[in-house]
Amino acid sequence: MVGMSVITLDDLSVANITTLLNKARYIDTHRREVAHTCDGRVLATLFYEPSTRTRLSFETAMLRLGGQVIGFAGAQLASVTKGESISDTLKTVSNYVDVVAIRHPKEGAALVAAEAASVPVINAGDGGHMHPTQTLADLATLQSRFGRVNDLTIGLCGDLTFGRTVHSLIETLCRFGNVRFILISPKELRTPQYVLNRINATPSCSYEEVSDLTSVIGDLDALYMTRVQKERFFNEDDYLRLRDTYILDEAKLALAKPDMAVLHPLPRVNEIAKDVDNDPRAAYFEQVKNGMLMRMALESSVLGDTLPGFDAFENKEVAA
Amino acid sequence: MVGMSVITLDDLSVANITTLLNKARYIDTHRREVAHTCDGRVLATLFYEPSTRTRLSFETAMLRLGGQVIGFAGAQLASVTKGESISDTLKTVSNYVDVVAIRHPKEGAALVAAEAASVPVINAGDGGHMHPTQTLADLATLQSRFGRVNDLTIGLCGDLTFGRTVHSLIETLCRFGNVRFILISPKELRTPQYVLNRINATPSCSYEEVSDLTSVIGDLDALYMTRVQKERFFNEDDYLRLRDTYILDEAKLALAKPDMAVLHPLPRVNEIAKDVDNDPRAAYFEQVKNGMLMRMALESSVLGDTLPGFDAFENKEVAA
Amino acid sequence: MVGMSVITLDDLSVANITTLLNKARYIDTHRREVAHTCDGRVLATLFYEPSTRTRLSFETAMLRLGGQVIGFAGAQLASVTKGESISDTLKTVSNYVDVVAIRHPKEGAALVAAEAASVPVINAGDGGHMHPTQTLADLATLQSRFGRVNDLTIGLCGDLTFGRTVHSLIETLCRFGNVRFILISPKELRTPQYVLNRINATPSCSYEEVSDLTSVIGDLDALYMTRVQKERFFNEDDYLRLRDTYILDEAKLALAKPDMAVLHPLPRVNEIAKDVDNDPRAAYFEQVKNGMLMRMALESSVLGDTLPGFDAFENKEVAA
Repeated sequence: MVGMSVITLDDLSVANITTLLNKARYIDTHRREVAHTCDGRVLATLFYEPSTRTRLSFETAMLRLGGQVIGFAGAQLASVTKGESISDTLKTVSNYVDVVAIRHPKEGAALVAAEAASVPVINAGDGGHMHPTQTLADLATLQSRFGRVNDLTIGLCGDLTFGRTVHSLIETLCRFGNVRFILISPKELRTPQYVLNRINATPSCSYEEVSDLTSVIGDLDALYMTRVQKERFFNEDDYLRLRDTYILDEAKLALAKPDMAVLHPLPRVNEIAKDVDNDPRAAYFEQVKNGMLMRMALESSVLGDTLPGFDAFENKEVAA
Repeated sequence: MVGMSVITLDDLSVANITTLLNKARYIDTHRREVAHTCDGRVLATLFYEPSTRTRLSFETAMLRLGGQVIGFAGAQLASVTKGESISDTLKTVSNYVDVVAIRHPKEGAALVAAEAASVPVINAGDGGHMHPTQTLADLATLQSRFGRVNDLTIGLCGDLTFGRTVHSLIETLCRFGNVRFILISPKELRTPQYVLNRINATPSCSYEEVSDLTSVIGDLDALYMTRVQKERFFNEDDYLRLRDTYILDEAKLALAKPDMAVLHPLPRVNEIAKDVDNDPRAAYFEQVKNGMLMRMALESSVLGDTLPGFDAFENKEVAA
Repeated sequence: MVGMSVITLDDLSVANITTLLNKARYIDTHRREVAHTCDGRVLATLFYEPSTRTRLSFETAMLRLGGQVIGFAGAQLASVTKGESISDTLKTVSNYVDVVAIRHPKEGAALVAAEAASVPVINAGDGGHMHPTQTLADLATLQSRFGRVNDLTIGLCGDLTFGRTVHSLIETLCRFGNVRFILISPKELRTPQYVLNRINATPSCSYEEVSDLTSVIGDLDALYMTRVQKERFFNEDDYLRLRDTYILDEAKLALAKPDMAVLHPLPRVNEIAKDVDNDPRAAYFEQVKNGMLMRMALESSVLGDTLPGFDAFENKEVAA
């Protein structure tokens, strides 16, 4: 992965993703050993729209590896956009840093950035496109809970039409194969056909579409919750009627397997009740940690910085 | 203090504060020795309202100890507040960092943050509540000027009704005892009764209320100046009549003891004339330095990071 | 240069600038050797108006030397300006950091800052005044392309009336001497008389004023392009007629020497066509790198931090 830009998950092979998952697991238990992996490196976080949680995750990842960070976010960017193209900004910043994380409201901006830059660029979200490190965080959470990202029954619940994190997750899981998807949504917010086609094209994967969470929750290994936004509905009545169906609380959770994992890309509004937070099945704050770990794995990989001790760890794993 | 959150000064015992004062003194003269105390640590500065001077002080403190900083301030926070509770933000950020400094416009926000976080939280100001590290800076300045924080006559001058730094300082000095307070203010801006009660409840402390600075300045060991804001007055005439009485200049300072210390929480507007800055009695920029030193002492203490050489230093002090 | 503030280029002697040029050259080829030159140092970037590219350059420079950075930019500064003078802010910040880079919309602000601060202050732009590190970047680019900053024919093209970077460059080159200036602009945007006087006062320098780029481009060793802003013209017709004359593209570049260097202070709008970027004569992104290198040289010099190995390098150069 050395020198590679990561704009969509297709830039990473299944083997690449597997390596990143292994690296994340290693980093989590070897914080001190990896703390100087990126000594002398500098990351630029170029956030043309604010996304504080994503920015802080990328930045912490680099700091925890011994590197440094420069950048801008939201309101500070006035002087950057003033008459300067993304290409020119990236050609400039390539003189300062070793790797860039970019967030931009326009689709395609991250690709333009990667083409102009002479250093690796990681897409931290551009318009409606994918946000690859969010999906990496989701995969790492399945991996840490189940020791695998396939051979699982995974429920995806809520807004399956507009929630791009679920589309990206489904597509990536199809590359690993052997997943049964339970797609739980009101009829207004069903999964788009192109995503269903992707599942259909994968012999080892299958799906069911249902509208009731409680009827299927008992079958699930993992439940991926998403926000159901009021403005997606045709009228207020439909929204009010349906909303509660897609709120996860301890009552609904009582019907689930004792080791089911609850994921959510965060921030949540009210689709997971507070009382779920202390349930051991709640995995969404772990997911935040996994996001940081995967960003550490990715940043060090595209920089070509070797994690001390990782090779021995991986060989031992393979031998075992 | 390891793992402790500091929301108000009541979270710190007199013994804790004494240790912090000793640590600050040690740090000031052993900058190089302590420069790696917090290697590998990360501080988050979560400033939901801008307070640049406070933020820079917390950040410098961590950097001077070898740690790193992430965070947001003011305009960058849009995406954080967008539908996410303080609790969820703190649960997220707890996955990234080792200690948090939070500033928020709402009273109680820092406590909510501390309860959600799994790492220590330091209150950098929330609404009308206390701002404990400001008072720590004030105490460190008395300590550095007089070698003690009691056995002193301390004048507090200006707006004693709304100035929360003076209330916090009085209450904390009462815990140390043996302080005589001279409360100097126009009648419109007198010290609130609950603060006077606190002094009355401390046998070793006493107070007098006066309206004229010049008549008492000669008695003072320290003079704590505050801003007198125009909008606190019922009418412009009163303001104009009284304002100058509470401006400290070289003429008034000529009446003071040669080793009196002038403190001010800063920023000042015009309540201390520029010509006072070069007077050796001016201690308000020293106070800024002491604020940073006390934040270094506090950050390292709640992290449980030992200052190299401090134990030997402290034992020698006790023996002497 | 230890402890020196740099507000205008006149603060630096020709010998100082020569040392900085040598240091920048050394740093570029000895990145690893200098990576800990400023360990333990902290830079404050106080940007009272946003200027992201300049801020990132100053910050990267300090990080690449092993130091750390605090600061504010644009929207974050509300609390700083609120009733506090630049002097008080600098007296405060002097307690936190070892060196300051300041940007302010008002002329003279950097000088006021330097007078109040107890640490070195570097002007990163104040109002219409000079921006000394931009000119240092320009000089370093000539030095790296030609091995010298004199004995050159230098074209300056575009808006020579309002472009303060060209005035500063001309004045500084006159101090080195032996430069022939070709001043290429529409008659509305000619070089001011005081700059021409500066050239006239330098026996070894000369100038010609022309309005056509193509007729002189073949004579040039270096071509310094600037923006021609629409609002500088009396009417739209003049603007449209003249604009294209001052756009550099591959067709015009075909008339130039094979080793001519194209400089531009950036950001560009459309005065250099994209197709020029891949021409080896394009030096404007190199200029960005040189800006960072000169800031590394300057920051370490005013801090008195010795670049490991530089003295031996310099002695060898002198001997050769």
